[in-house]
Amino acid sequence: MAEQKQRKKVTLVVFSGELDKVLASFIVATSAAAMGMDVTMFFTFWGLNAVKKNEGLLRGPGVMRKMLNLLNRGGSKRLKLSKFHMFGLGTRMMKRLMKESGTPTVDEMITLAKKLGVKMIACTTSLGVMGLSRDDFREEVDTLAGAVAYLDEAQDAEVNLFI
Amino acid sequence: MAEQKQRKKVTLVVFSGELDKVLASFIVATSAAAMGMDVTMFFTFWGLNAVKKNEGLLRGPGVMRKMLNLLNRGGSKRLKLSKFHMFGLGTRMMKRLMKESGTPTVDEMITLAKKLGVKMIACTTSLGVMGLSRDDFREEVDTLAGAVAYLDEAQDAEVNLFI
Amino acid sequence: MAEQKQRKKVTLVVFSGELDKVLASFIVATSAAAMGMDVTMFFTFWGLNAVKKNEGLLRGPGVMRKMLNLLNRGGSKRLKLSKFHMFGLGTRMMKRLMKESGTPTVDEMITLAKKLGVKMIACTTSLGVMGLSRDDFREEVDTLAGAVAYLDEAQDAEVNLFI
Repeated sequence: MAEQKQRKKVTLVVFSGELDKVLASFIVATSAAAMGMDVTMFFTFWGLNAVKKNEGLLRGPGVMRKMLNLLNRGGSKRLKLSKFHMFGLGTRMMKRLMKESGTPTVDEMITLAKKLGVKMIACTTSLGVMGLSRDDFREEVDTLAGAVAYLDEAQDAEVNLFI
Repeated sequence: MAEQKQRKKVTLVVFSGELDKVLASFIVATSAAAMGMDVTMFFTFWGLNAVKKNEGLLRGPGVMRKMLNLLNRGGSKRLKLSKFHMFGLGTRMMKRLMKESGTPTVDEMITLAKKLGVKMIACTTSLGVMGLSRDDFREEVDTLAGAVAYLDEAQDAEVNLFI
Repeated sequence: MAEQKQRKKVTLVVFSGELDKVLASFIVATSAAAMGMDVTMFFTFWGLNAVKKNEGLLRGPGVMRKMLNLLNRGGSKRLKLSKFHMFGLGTRMMKRLMKESGTPTVDEMITLAKKLGVKMIACTTSLGVMGLSRDDFREEVDTLAGAVAYLDEAQDAEVNLFI
């Protein structure tokens, strides 16, 4: 029990699908995992875009869901900055600056997170509304679950963030 | 004392007034309350819009406050998506998708939260700046209070989120 | 040990550089410090703008960084509202309303936070990407550090928020 308490726990709700916030989430997640903490990332709403497959396109039953999922395609390579996106120019510039300064891409961070044992969960409620299923997500996603599963983890975590 | 510790606590700062973030707040709040946790929602800044009366309009002393409160009318039925609002079209579509998949509306969630004993607090600092008073808010709001009251709750909570 | 536990701890990640969110951060930080808690603010990404010098302008090596830092000049006096900025009109109106209701400016809050012993840290990862250095920041910033230093603090904090 005392030993168990040594292992601290971090739980992140990744609500936002913007490049900068997704990066911040993975920087916290991978740093914490590298420090020996238990990390769970709970992707919900727009945050699901970070762990969608890059090759997906038209998803979900019905015209409205297809429109939504076309507008909101997602995939780690399509994330945009929350500021200065400027029709793609700002986002592209930021990616170049990140590369120059040796910051990993979102894709590399997902791979690293997986290697470090970060648990990735996609939110079932959002999936239901958007008409998405397990197949729309990368294989690094461990499981689908709802708010109860999230709270079950969060109540024992030392660090809880909503990003 | 030991028994008291069984009852976990969740405290949410609802800063954002966007439909998607308000929904996320209430999903966490009602799920936690249904699991037997003590939940406090602290509405501040734009988040106050979620618990304003739907029928309100011109509020506050002075022209500037009236303009601000006209622009920022709020009420659970006027909340907009943070993305793809598209002059109301996107927000309307999302509400239809939510209905189809059985997700409650914000109004239904506020009623449910109240029934489950979720405590709702409106932030006095924001009220002062915006020139609002108790009357501008729904009856489900339990009390008005400031940052000190929030921190008093938050310091004992297992889960603290800023949404 | 028991006495140490009396002193509660608050750790804030200030990710957003918008006036309203920066204000919310400082209201929580200064209130907590006034209540006798240990407070650390970790400024990262756009949040760095809150603690940049007001007189800065062209920064960083290379054309792209200069462009980014021109667009994203920052400084406590240049922060904009996340909503209703309206080419400066909304932000100016909000500042007037804040003044009327006796709310301190960001500048006054930084001074107050410093006096109350709030620790302010600027994130090295963001600095690296943006090509900024210690000189670009106000003297109130205590130190530069990365995600590991943040997590080291956060894991012992009672209240952790990502703003």
